[in-house]
Amino acid sequence: MSTASTSSSSKKHKVVIVGSGNWGSAIARIAGQNTQRHSDTFQREVQMYVFEEDYNGKPLSQVINETHENPKYLPGCKLPDNVIANPNPVDAVKDATLLVFVLPHQFIRSVCKQLKGHVNPDAHAISMIKGVEVKDGKISIFADVIQEALGVSCSALSGANIANEVAQDKFSETTIGHRPDAKGRENAELFFKLFDTPTFKVGIIEDVAGVSLCGALKNVVAIAAGFTDGLGWGDNAKAAVMRIGLMEMKRFSEEFFEGIKPETFTETSAGVADLITTCLGGRNRKCAEAFVKTGKPFDQLEKELLNGQKLQGTETAREVHELLAARGKVDDYPLFKAVYSIAYEGIDAHDLTSRL
Amino acid sequence: MSTASTSSSSKKHKVVIVGSGNWGSAIARIAGQNTQRHSDTFQREVQMYVFEEDYNGKPLSQVINETHENPKYLPGCKLPDNVIANPNPVDAVKDATLLVFVLPHQFIRSVCKQLKGHVNPDAHAISMIKGVEVKDGKISIFADVIQEALGVSCSALSGANIANEVAQDKFSETTIGHRPDAKGRENAELFFKLFDTPTFKVGIIEDVAGVSLCGALKNVVAIAAGFTDGLGWGDNAKAAVMRIGLMEMKRFSEEFFEGIKPETFTETSAGVADLITTCLGGRNRKCAEAFVKTGKPFDQLEKELLNGQKLQGTETAREVHELLAARGKVDDYPLFKAVYSIAYEGIDAHDLTSRL
Repeated sequence: MSTASTSSSSKKHKVVIVGSGNWGSAIARIAGQNTQRHSDTFQREVQMYVFEEDYNGKPLSQVINETHENPKYLPGCKLPDNVIANPNPVDAVKDATLLVFVLPHQFIRSVCKQLKGHVNPDAHAISMIKGVEVKDGKISIFADVIQEALGVSCSALSGANIANEVAQDKFSETTIGHRPDAKGRENAELFFKLFDTPTFKVGIIEDVAGVSLCGALKNVVAIAAGFTDGLGWGDNAKAAVMRIGLMEMKRFSEEFFEGIKPETFTETSAGVADLITTCLGGRNRKCAEAFVKTGKPFDQLEKELLNGQKLQGTETAREVHELLAARGKVDDYPLFKAVYSIAYEGIDAHDLTSRL
Repeated sequence: MSTASTSSSSKKHKVVIVGSGNWGSAIARIAGQNTQRHSDTFQREVQMYVFEEDYNGKPLSQVINETHENPKYLPGCKLPDNVIANPNPVDAVKDATLLVFVLPHQFIRSVCKQLKGHVNPDAHAISMIKGVEVKDGKISIFADVIQEALGVSCSALSGANIANEVAQDKFSETTIGHRPDAKGRENAELFFKLFDTPTFKVGIIEDVAGVSLCGALKNVVAIAAGFTDGLGWGDNAKAAVMRIGLMEMKRFSEEFFEGIKPETFTETSAGVADLITTCLGGRNRKCAEAFVKTGKPFDQLEKELLNGQKLQGTETAREVHELLAARGKVDDYPLFKAVYSIAYEGIDAHDLTSRL
């Protein structure tokens, strides 16, 4: 019995959450619950890499392990006691077979550099990073950056997932996009089991780039939606801008990536549903509304309204513009162009729809 | 010269708006502007059939013609002086070649009966009616009802079109769905010219049933969205319910109608955009929120909150349920089923998502 149990245990997947912000902590909570629920598939303990910082005179990782709560990024939400904060990324990923990347995108490359050579080559990875990387006229999604840097198959997860609502078990859906090969499918099924719960419903689609791009590009559309709110244009205009934006998101992705599925954009939680959530609430929408109403520049609003958090929509609009300019395609995406021109070139927000 | 001009004039289309409520008046305003703008295609005068009623001691049609405003249904909005109110439907449609049906759906059959034999057989018609007719286990759209009753080709128009916003020239899009034949295409192009403006942008798709069904079924989804608002479930849950609802709308339409285009639902203003507008504001959403918060039945809320207007979402949910029950398909549409069960069978709204 004991041998069988050990042998079975050695096949169980070990989970590490690489990141511990608001969304990382919310997803660590679910992973910690589900490794217990599916104890035939997963080892109980979930490692969570915490970028160390001071919290009221103590290291944040120590506070998390003592209180089973991340008081800095997800206050008021208990983490299961099998989620273990670890400030050392190399130590956190040791022997892990499931790697969940949920870091701000500016840290991805440096963390991957640290992890290189320390990751189980058979590990499965998933990226929950919202954003794209544009360099030298080329655009990359972070699932590709991670896959190439670490040599592991990497899926992507995105959806209408406001972290605090997920942490409170309010009903949500999400979408996993996976690679077209067998490993990609296996990946998606493992992460499905790790994350799916009665109030956090996971869908699967064979489209890692589409899911990733939905998560990045929706923020550009949310800026446009925020402009319509600031202008007091009403629900018809806002819905029109969201629809036009969704169509540009899809077309842009089909133009610059292989194997994009249109229904990722129009039918999944990562697509249409996340666009709705982001354009209803969300920091991009909020700052864009304030931009129109106050006339203050975005970097000032970021400081005043976001408590130091970065605004992703304007940054992505800039990156998308840089790519489109390099390819001579700026005019093919009038909504993206209008957002860039209003945010960065001083064009009046009232011109938004006259350019569509 | 004079002969040529007369001959050219005799080919110009004569427009009649059959209906003069809130939306009918808003669309009559646009039609009145565009017949003047495109004087090569349309006769200047636009007839508007007004169901006669008393307004402060005067017939409403007389008030409209004296003040160029419909003070009962679209107060504060000037109509162009070439829009002529006419309380006699047979007289209004005389020699008309473009018929715009924009009546509450309970009046369609009786008005068509009055008009039968009085309509130009070469006329083009368009239905702006939101709703479906379910009878003896069969479902019909009103564009088909009109086409069969009057023997004229009938398209459909629907979109994210809150009437008061359209009347104020706030930016909106809309969608015309037309028949697959040459007459259908010609129809769509004429109505495009009659309605398209810089702030009311018309799209065209070859799918008259899809456009009609979007306009009817979105109201059922808005009831579900209103339930989530009433329950305080947050934006993730609301977006999830909207996404699931949109997928059921599409699947239902594909199951019961021929020639449905999926992109009508996922890419047009009639589909995804109108769903968004309706679930953001809208009377169905509002009453469903109040239903959960107050526990009052829908017929009471209708009286208290809608000033005598009918709630379309609960009525359409009932009709859809009747059809699905007759076909043994109720369980294939869990969101539609949940809306029906909560609205009509006393099921607790908290059960909404556990049934999806």
